[in-house]
Amino acid sequence: MKINKDYLNLSENYLFSEIASRVKKYGAEHPDKEIIRLGIGDVTKPIAEPIMAALKSAVDEMGKKETFRGYAPDRGYEFLRKAISDIDYKKRGCDIEPDEIFVSDGAKSDCGNIQEIFDKDNVVAVTDPVYPVYADTNVMAGRKIIYMPCTKENGFIPEIPKKKADIIYLCFPNNPTGTVIKKDQLQKFIDYAQTNDSVIIYDAAYEAYITEEGIPHSIYECEGAKEVAIELHSFSKNAGFTGLRLGYAVVPKALKREGVSLNALWARRHATKYNGAPYIVQRAGEAVYSEAGMKAVMTQVREYMENATLIRTKLSDMGYEVFGGVNAPYIWMKVPKEMSGWDFFDLLLDKANVVGTPGEGFGKCGAGYFRLTAFGDKNDTQRAMERIKGI
Amino acid sequence: MKINKDYLNLSENYLFSEIASRVKKYGAEHPDKEIIRLGIGDVTKPIAEPIMAALKSAVDEMGKKETFRGYAPDRGYEFLRKAISDIDYKKRGCDIEPDEIFVSDGAKSDCGNIQEIFDKDNVVAVTDPVYPVYADTNVMAGRKIIYMPCTKENGFIPEIPKKKADIIYLCFPNNPTGTVIKKDQLQKFIDYAQTNDSVIIYDAAYEAYITEEGIPHSIYECEGAKEVAIELHSFSKNAGFTGLRLGYAVVPKALKREGVSLNALWARRHATKYNGAPYIVQRAGEAVYSEAGMKAVMTQVREYMENATLIRTKLSDMGYEVFGGVNAPYIWMKVPKEMSGWDFFDLLLDKANVVGTPGEGFGKCGAGYFRLTAFGDKNDTQRAMERIKGI
Repeated sequence: MKINKDYLNLSENYLFSEIASRVKKYGAEHPDKEIIRLGIGDVTKPIAEPIMAALKSAVDEMGKKETFRGYAPDRGYEFLRKAISDIDYKKRGCDIEPDEIFVSDGAKSDCGNIQEIFDKDNVVAVTDPVYPVYADTNVMAGRKIIYMPCTKENGFIPEIPKKKADIIYLCFPNNPTGTVIKKDQLQKFIDYAQTNDSVIIYDAAYEAYITEEGIPHSIYECEGAKEVAIELHSFSKNAGFTGLRLGYAVVPKALKREGVSLNALWARRHATKYNGAPYIVQRAGEAVYSEAGMKAVMTQVREYMENATLIRTKLSDMGYEVFGGVNAPYIWMKVPKEMSGWDFFDLLLDKANVVGTPGEGFGKCGAGYFRLTAFGDKNDTQRAMERIKGI
Repeated sequence: MKINKDYLNLSENYLFSEIASRVKKYGAEHPDKEIIRLGIGDVTKPIAEPIMAALKSAVDEMGKKETFRGYAPDRGYEFLRKAISDIDYKKRGCDIEPDEIFVSDGAKSDCGNIQEIFDKDNVVAVTDPVYPVYADTNVMAGRKIIYMPCTKENGFIPEIPKKKADIIYLCFPNNPTGTVIKKDQLQKFIDYAQTNDSVIIYDAAYEAYITEEGIPHSIYECEGAKEVAIELHSFSKNAGFTGLRLGYAVVPKALKREGVSLNALWARRHATKYNGAPYIVQRAGEAVYSEAGMKAVMTQVREYMENATLIRTKLSDMGYEVFGGVNAPYIWMKVPKEMSGWDFFDLLLDKANVVGTPGEGFGKCGAGYFRLTAFGDKNDTQRAMERIKGI
């Protein structure tokens, strides 16, 4: 029996597992210290009232014989896929049908699993810095990865790959830099993909945080995207579902390679390895698209963005160079000279008892940077800024 | 961009998607017919009261800031892993610790994903007939599969593989045949795995249905199993979680290959591609192990087994040859001579409006057999038997 040795090419721990373990160790050694966590992008606000009402009502159904629901359709209930199609797409002028939508237990699973429908020999391009899942899951599958540097100099927008890339992962608003891409910049990637027969995996998990006009919320706002792009969405960041688990992938029927429909391939993967998201969570997801639900989640997003503004301005006032935080819940800061992101992580944990994420965890170009999230409690975020000022 | 062409070696549809689509078509063409579904192994009883209480209470926590929970630990909450370790293992004399347990969104996901930690070049052995997920997911990964025939002649217990098998999937109580394996028979597979450096994937999804003494509920009841076996469990069949989604995998720390811990490999897979089962569902899972919860689920299992007895005896009385249904919720019947399982499927759907699963869907050795499940409503099950008698 041989193991999958591609796993041995990974760092020993997944980034956020490593951070959790360092914080746990520090906490155990300093039980008197109160730690403020602005590291992992986890939300802190409770599920909004209209969504709670839908969740509770669906839970009640599970306790009665007449309304009990067993296996969900593996692609997701029609009621949810229709709401997604209507509100997230058709309302924005993107013609995405319910049968191009696959509901899942979250964008992380989809990010990780989508590569399975592609051959091992494709060349994968990811940005640097990058959300580790895109890279790690392709390392696990033994694929060759090329990196597209995102630096201060290029405004954290990657250049079009110089070498041929078969699969390109993009995430905008970006995790970890908090920066966004304009429509004409994104269009260049679509044109590249059309010329080179590439496929773009577009992670739109943070689109609800876009505050400025002219920034695409979906890749399908660009021309020809349905022939080249898969889009991934999360309910975690806009509606607080990190603990409920819900997401979806869009695989357009127009997306074909080597004469095969990627929609059909993903449908086969979904049917074979997945058994549907829980009915109760799908009903909660449907309520996100109700009038009351949309109002409630927009309020939460606005409140998190107040944290982003606070972090951005306070750090600027302290003399730090900061990026992001305008159309995204992430602030990407340059750490003091001569320090690495991990040095700054340790310093902040020790002196301010504040947890962030070192840029090195996201790739080589993240070296000397540090990510803070706007998902904390408002009061905690304010206190964290005061503590950072004090060091 | 090249697609994963191993997908093209699969049949076009996943078995149960194919059945659902045939039934849907029949229903649309015969809107006046009332169809009784004993096909897919989906439960029909509502979630039991003590589990509902825990679920509702956890849902309430999600609506309040002080008790809201975001991302769950990717391996599952300690409270659930401890309950599993205590009740499913230590109480049975199996020394499985909480850090050898990985909570997931269901055994189907685990069945499908576990092969990722193994090299592509391993030879996989599955029984024939077989739950399609074991075979399909290895076809998708391009592995070579050998089949272990399970026939009336060998009592549906596979022979030890004659060729070398690196990975062996076993499922007992068996889906689809409903038969069980005795401890000494299972021990032979463990001895084989130790001699040949193989790994056994043991699917114990139906262990709650064992009614007779001397049948192992876990592979870890056998000697040396911790060095060779991974065990998969579901909450779907014992506690009615098909629509809530919860399962777990046991990967013992003693299980190593080529000097690498499979527990560590699976931990890395879990952390990278999965973000934890919903907190509310894990609390419901914990309640399954409470005194009231265990009593309630045992009552449900007993009631489903009354259906199994009914199906078994009624079909026998009609002159059919039947297997299973004593320690499992599945009845495996021989269809009338000269007919295929798919012929019988169509006949039953058309003349009795009863849905079952043709044996061919589970493999070549399933030809001429038909699977019925005991998960239906009692009254429906009785009526289905009367209808079958009438044809």
